[in-house]
Amino acid sequence: MPALQMKRVCIIGCGAIGSLYAAHLARVAEVWAFVRREDHARALSRDGLQVSGKHEFRVPLKATTRADQIPDCELGIVATKATQVEESISAVGNRFNQGAVISAQNGLGSEEIIAAHTRGQVIRGTTFMSGTKHSDTHVQLELDTATWIGPFEPRHTPYALVKEIADLINAGGLKAEALQDARPAQWSKLIFNASVNGVSALTGLPHSPHFCDESRSSGLGHLVHELIEEGKSVAAAAGIQLHEDPWEMNKIGAMTNHPPSMLYDIRHQLPTEVDFLSGAIALEAERVGVLAPLHSAVRRLIKGKEASWTFKDENRAAEL
Amino acid sequence: MPALQMKRVCIIGCGAIGSLYAAHLARVAEVWAFVRREDHARALSRDGLQVSGKHEFRVPLKATTRADQIPDCELGIVATKATQVEESISAVGNRFNQGAVISAQNGLGSEEIIAAHTRGQVIRGTTFMSGTKHSDTHVQLELDTATWIGPFEPRHTPYALVKEIADLINAGGLKAEALQDARPAQWSKLIFNASVNGVSALTGLPHSPHFCDESRSSGLGHLVHELIEEGKSVAAAAGIQLHEDPWEMNKIGAMTNHPPSMLYDIRHQLPTEVDFLSGAIALEAERVGVLAPLHSAVRRLIKGKEASWTFKDENRAAEL
Repeated sequence: MPALQMKRVCIIGCGAIGSLYAAHLARVAEVWAFVRREDHARALSRDGLQVSGKHEFRVPLKATTRADQIPDCELGIVATKATQVEESISAVGNRFNQGAVISAQNGLGSEEIIAAHTRGQVIRGTTFMSGTKHSDTHVQLELDTATWIGPFEPRHTPYALVKEIADLINAGGLKAEALQDARPAQWSKLIFNASVNGVSALTGLPHSPHFCDESRSSGLGHLVHELIEEGKSVAAAAGIQLHEDPWEMNKIGAMTNHPPSMLYDIRHQLPTEVDFLSGAIALEAERVGVLAPLHSAVRRLIKGKEASWTFKDENRAAEL
Repeated sequence: MPALQMKRVCIIGCGAIGSLYAAHLARVAEVWAFVRREDHARALSRDGLQVSGKHEFRVPLKATTRADQIPDCELGIVATKATQVEESISAVGNRFNQGAVISAQNGLGSEEIIAAHTRGQVIRGTTFMSGTKHSDTHVQLELDTATWIGPFEPRHTPYALVKEIADLINAGGLKAEALQDARPAQWSKLIFNASVNGVSALTGLPHSPHFCDESRSSGLGHLVHELIEEGKSVAAAAGIQLHEDPWEMNKIGAMTNHPPSMLYDIRHQLPTEVDFLSGAIALEAERVGVLAPLHSAVRRLIKGKEASWTFKDENRAAEL
């Protein structure tokens, strides 16, 4: 069983998704968690991780904030936000020079950043699982949907290795599917996320029936649909056939009333992933020579929103 | 002097703009203020209006919340927000059946509403003056820029009457200019307002240098510029030549750091004028058979923002 060759795994970033990978893989491999907060590392080292929801168990694991304590690993999974990939992988990328690193971010662009910081194999990852982190040591598995992984083309990652890693993730109890080409899956999720997260962040609405409302001319469903169509035309121009129809994904998402991560970021005035979502679509559109005015608009509005948090507005003070 | 024929004027709505019209006209005519709040009417009847800033004076005037107390008038100026025109003019429109009514709203569409409620003449008004209302009885005149007035075409308002009314406003100390065709001025302001107010409301930024920033691909100046170009192409398709270039207006506005009214509305969760701004451009685009995807997007995002205030988001409660 090839998966058993994976002796040591490092999970970089332990939010909900990172914690789920760490806990499940700790059942079949030696797992290190590389995190930013000292108290987070201490709690994980002391208590391990408790999983609830679809699965129920507790496992011990090793955790640290210090890059120099991370040993060489056969596998890394970068599970930070897209905006934190550069900072985190630059510290530990060379620990995977003999192994492989999976990106688990939303959007496009993380693989290129990872590849710049490791000589190991790079694997495109797109995950549809979801969870809620109740504390630093307790994560709830909600949707145990698959993680799709495939080669990062510029590095010619061997498919056999992708398959071996999928086997390891499956052995740990999560679902993974190895794909010859991970771009159709990644782009499906990209277009869905870029279209819906931007609209959510700008309106303050979570995934909700408004996102499918095409009953009136002013309905938000028209805009979400137009954003998705624009994304599909960029994908087509880039030669990518989609794995799933993002509009169908939106119809399902709209029933959940779940706040997407970008809405959370806006509410808490945190940097958003917009450069990796609508920004990535706009950049790709430019590269392949098609137009993406709506995704460009969303990108610019979100960047403007981020700028508003620090803009000194003298009239505002007077008004309040 | 024809202006002296104007014996009685009613100002409908006394925010900053309405108060400025009421106070200045009260120096040359009998002025009634028709307002919504009982305490507002009482304060105006008791104390009159104090003007400060560019002009300094105090005048008495009559004010009421009761439509049945308003006598027949030679002139009405509707100075409410666009969203309140219907409610206010429907109550008193017939008092102007022998006179004329000026619209002083942002955007398009108020004239049609006014015309539906009076048999009098209707006059397109576009004002560039600005002020700050310090209290119900004190308004500061900031920019004493002109109000442009002209015929409302469907009613064939005589230009001589427009001229007479401009003379009256000038006699009161404010600036007014009579135009044979008021649409070029109204559309210039419409395109400027629709483009900038929407971006401001969605980002939280007041008129600020960001709105001219075209130095980076993610700069908001690109979006404002594209919205303005889209508006100009709709105006051109509708056969309207602009009076001023809205992009030049934006370059001046961007130096003020002034919060536009739609940003105020969003901050206070009040209904916005978006249907009369980007919504009006989108509607006109549809009528003349051209596309306005960006103004449609702004309209739908703002309507979504308004919907978010009452949307029951169960996950939000859990998160906080």
